[in-house]
Amino acid sequence: MKIRDFRIHSIAISDPPLRSSFGLHAPLALRTVIELESADGVIGIAETHGGEGPAKALESLRARVIGQDATRLFVSLADLRGQGEYRMALAALEVASLDLIGKTVGLPVHALLGGKVRDDVPFSAYAFYKHAWGESKYGEALTPEGLVTQVQELIADYGFGSVKLKAGVLEPDEEIETIKLLRQTLGTNVPLRIDPNCVWSVETSLRAGRALREELSNGGYLEDPAQGMADMAAVRAGLLAEGIETPLASNMAVTSFETLAESYRTDACQVVLGDHHYWGGLRAVLELGRVCETLGIGLSMHSNSHLGISLMAMAHVAAATRQLSYACDTHYPWQSAADEIVAEGRIPIVGGNVRVSDAPGLGVTLNYDNLEKLKERYSKSPIRARDDVAEMRQHVDPHWERRRW
Amino acid sequence: MKIRDFRIHSIAISDPPLRSSFGLHAPLALRTVIELESADGVIGIAETHGGEGPAKALESLRARVIGQDATRLFVSLADLRGQGEYRMALAALEVASLDLIGKTVGLPVHALLGGKVRDDVPFSAYAFYKHAWGESKYGEALTPEGLVTQVQELIADYGFGSVKLKAGVLEPDEEIETIKLLRQTLGTNVPLRIDPNCVWSVETSLRAGRALREELSNGGYLEDPAQGMADMAAVRAGLLAEGIETPLASNMAVTSFETLAESYRTDACQVVLGDHHYWGGLRAVLELGRVCETLGIGLSMHSNSHLGISLMAMAHVAAATRQLSYACDTHYPWQSAADEIVAEGRIPIVGGNVRVSDAPGLGVTLNYDNLEKLKERYSKSPIRARDDVAEMRQHVDPHWERRRW
Repeated sequence: MKIRDFRIHSIAISDPPLRSSFGLHAPLALRTVIELESADGVIGIAETHGGEGPAKALESLRARVIGQDATRLFVSLADLRGQGEYRMALAALEVASLDLIGKTVGLPVHALLGGKVRDDVPFSAYAFYKHAWGESKYGEALTPEGLVTQVQELIADYGFGSVKLKAGVLEPDEEIETIKLLRQTLGTNVPLRIDPNCVWSVETSLRAGRALREELSNGGYLEDPAQGMADMAAVRAGLLAEGIETPLASNMAVTSFETLAESYRTDACQVVLGDHHYWGGLRAVLELGRVCETLGIGLSMHSNSHLGISLMAMAHVAAATRQLSYACDTHYPWQSAADEIVAEGRIPIVGGNVRVSDAPGLGVTLNYDNLEKLKERYSKSPIRARDDVAEMRQHVDPHWERRRW
Repeated sequence: MKIRDFRIHSIAISDPPLRSSFGLHAPLALRTVIELESADGVIGIAETHGGEGPAKALESLRARVIGQDATRLFVSLADLRGQGEYRMALAALEVASLDLIGKTVGLPVHALLGGKVRDDVPFSAYAFYKHAWGESKYGEALTPEGLVTQVQELIADYGFGSVKLKAGVLEPDEEIETIKLLRQTLGTNVPLRIDPNCVWSVETSLRAGRALREELSNGGYLEDPAQGMADMAAVRAGLLAEGIETPLASNMAVTSFETLAESYRTDACQVVLGDHHYWGGLRAVLELGRVCETLGIGLSMHSNSHLGISLMAMAHVAAATRQLSYACDTHYPWQSAADEIVAEGRIPIVGGNVRVSDAPGLGVTLNYDNLEKLKERYSKSPIRARDDVAEMRQHVDPHWERRRW
């Protein structure tokens, strides 16, 4: 399975004006798609973060990728492990090599990972405060009521059985009110999670934890309320002191195996949000599952804006990870069908689930026409890195600063 | 890769009169060899513990094995995880299914595990106090001097670069003296480890740790000196209080992922001895590597008496486990070439290393003539379970009891 070609495609995809504590999503989100082609002409693909940085990191590995055997590609790059600029590149190459191996030998990626423990991978509705402009079918949502309408539409379209609110946007009391309104509207069987991306103080986090004690129980969690391991641990200790057992989830304090051990010692985080793009690939997420199980920590999955290749890669590893204890995040409903580069078409989310493919490899291949369109869109756009602050200043408030509550 | 046949072979192999704190090895050691045959006629093999218990556990799974796809066999048995009587059976089935998958698709097991990070897997000389009888080429070793002679012979035959002494047999001072004599004889570049299998008190353990402070440094360790997590932690704390950083290794206090977390909290063990036969298979050992790395714990590998199938399975997983930080244990030199059931012949250990096979699957197949001989030996022997105490009473001391020092 010698690799004879390595192609890197920088693409831009439409993105609606979603808000977070970091600012505003630009009209274009950037992704990178890679292809590994073997001497037999089999092609393995992967999708990762976009823009100049990720593409350059991948390009710099070309000489080490060409000529390498796909079954050894990932370990042959082990010396780059721990070098931050290669973190996502190595993961993308692992995914593409697993796709290539699977397509060559006729096995789905989940079989290469040890076998699927589930056919259907649960995903959570990912609700955002949102502006009205753009072409998304979902309208403005800048109030608790607007947000609830959005969630109802998402559930109607995809059947999601749990909901995550991207918070840190409105005043904390309004966000608390949003969750309370979601609970009232959706009933008690839909787990709720709220994620202000670390912009709350310990005090605000405790206030939210207290106010949402019932709403975040039954499978919900409070994600990254405060910044840093120490403040997360203080929130946890404060909540426990009041008898509130709402777990804290994290993909910002706990971002790696290294930080996970510290988190365990300080009890800063009870649910880790894994992400194969960040954590070192699909096998690393499987291993993360075992680490979490060993330490009594729950496992969920983080997402950035992405297309169907990433969604199916997430589905394969989630299907093979016995320890996955929460529905995964996905931005997929925010992307448009017209932008899908997967030749098999947009991947269905039914009943909140993605059915993992049993076809060889990831079970998806490239639609080269659409890929070309998105590459052209990338070429014609000046955007080379995500800058949600600039978008916010341009479209909403010229003096906007990320603030803490 | 549907499994159409499942064959279970109980065998008995020659074993020399090795001593441990548990007593005396019997002249026959028991193993179980399994074969999984696919509808295509490809055969996957594995080797595990022997006697009636392991064979019965495997046999009881027949209806769930036949007809299952090899790529899903292991996860299809996930409900039996955690049921002690199936622990080794599940691991054996995982190894055999990986061998079957690899032989079917033309990939070595290490490639299925993510890729080998090393070609040569280091093993340690496994030295035993030993009686003279039997057919082993190694003679009596019941004194420090006899043991040193044995180690010199093992090193001459296999080129081992590190040495483990199975202790808990002689008076602790004699065993300490043995290690000191080994250090004097072998020089400072050969890491030494000593394993009394938990029969030392905390005080004796501290005495040994103190006496062997220099001898167990430079890559050595003190393995399972005292019994149970609390006493292991007490030994560690006591040694650290005296500035002695000799790591404690364990395969007796730490026997599972569950016990590993407790060990981390109490610092009872700084090196885990993994073993795919016990820990849930090859993938579980890979995951153990990640858990150990995350927690800052070293990783070595445990062994029982075994033939070439187990040795090659150990080599595959060790080759793919980046975090392996110590040479592996193996009893292989104590088994006889005449008993080898691997058709490719006895697996070479050169320079202390086993070269992992790049052939499909485990890279070894069965010698059915030898297998039949060993099955016959099993049938004709009354032994159905290991009983080192009975052997000790029969051959050495009719009143022998396992003692603690």
